[in-house]
Amino acid sequence: MTHFSKQDIINLPSLERMHLVNSCGGLKSGNLIGSISKSGVTNLGVFNSVIHLGSNPPMLSFMLRPTTVERHTYDNFKENKHFTVNHIHESFVDKAHQTSAKYDEDVSEFKEVGLTEEFIKGFEAPFVKESRIKIGCKYINSYFIEENGCRLIIGEIQHILVEDGIQDKDGFLDLTKANSAGIIGLDGYVKTELIERYTYARPNQEPKLLKG
Amino acid sequence: MTHFSKQDIINLPSLERMHLVNSCGGLKSGNLIGSISKSGVTNLGVFNSVIHLGSNPPMLSFMLRPTTVERHTYDNFKENKHFTVNHIHESFVDKAHQTSAKYDEDVSEFKEVGLTEEFIKGFEAPFVKESRIKIGCKYINSYFIEENGCRLIIGEIQHILVEDGIQDKDGFLDLTKANSAGIIGLDGYVKTELIERYTYARPNQEPKLLKG
Repeated sequence: MTHFSKQDIINLPSLERMHLVNSCGGLKSGNLIGSISKSGVTNLGVFNSVIHLGSNPPMLSFMLRPTTVERHTYDNFKENKHFTVNHIHESFVDKAHQTSAKYDEDVSEFKEVGLTEEFIKGFEAPFVKESRIKIGCKYINSYFIEENGCRLIIGEIQHILVEDGIQDKDGFLDLTKANSAGIIGLDGYVKTELIERYTYARPNQEPKLLKG
Repeated sequence: MTHFSKQDIINLPSLERMHLVNSCGGLKSGNLIGSISKSGVTNLGVFNSVIHLGSNPPMLSFMLRPTTVERHTYDNFKENKHFTVNHIHESFVDKAHQTSAKYDEDVSEFKEVGLTEEFIKGFEAPFVKESRIKIGCKYINSYFIEENGCRLIIGEIQHILVEDGIQDKDGFLDLTKANSAGIIGLDGYVKTELIERYTYARPNQEPKLLKG
């Protein structure tokens, strides 16, 4: 067992510290966030911090770091209030990762990495055609994190698009059937396999498997 | 392709809506958060919203829902400022899920579900002995999310404990070697397999595999 104290972590070379701390919190979601600028340039960036916020109204959140790349996304949806969240699938993790390169503001990552824009009527942000699960969100608020200048972005879900064969009868999206990729740290992409689903837990009852 | 509009989602039966919205954002981390009350009762709860916040100082965050179960955890670390984040591993997803049952405040989930408390000197919160990756955090701030009464909790990392054979040379924790489980929605647990790691992405260069 290796024990890193806070001081040990701070003393690590910068890149080693980033790899360690970015990977220590556990698996992360792998999503591409799509947006479009006032002048019509589409933008696509990889994010690993999308989490569920609430079901009614349906909301999600993600953390925006204070970097140039992610600022293009932020500038866009501050302007027109719309962004999309598109699952990264096993078959295009390389393209998803490539969206993290620092492209100029007038360059569309869709074209650069080879993914396809898709629009739905009345919604001003591009979806990723290749994604099997995609969400259209309205930007509703952000919280500035004083500790390090990140912003927690709150989006209200306007649309969920799900390919056939992924959703269980009770509403659950089986992301292993969708081949949705997860992310470890800054640069590791994983595929997943379902272990089990369990029923609602109650005190003094053994955990029970949920039979689909 | 199934298309759910916001209104379709709101019109779903409550449980179906929860399953859909909780699973649509992608894979989630699987962690047990440990804490201890003023009167010495340990508490352990499953959380799927831990995300990386920053590396220097090392920080993480997670979302606390406005429910009774999670409030025990909150009350504890508001009091003594310490909590632990322990990876759920494939071998004990059933026990981890069982911590979500609504136990009384004077009951320790460690004992109830069959996991082992472990303390380190000078740190006032219990770790999970069975976890291969565990983090000791100091509570530093919380942000109240007006939209639905959740709280984003900010923790500064004081300790990272990692079992041998998990960390790559560059600092990265290979969570697939640790057998860390991920979570889908409210009740699905997954195991993972590494697809690839990629090098830092740059414009006009093909994505390159990182060779360990």
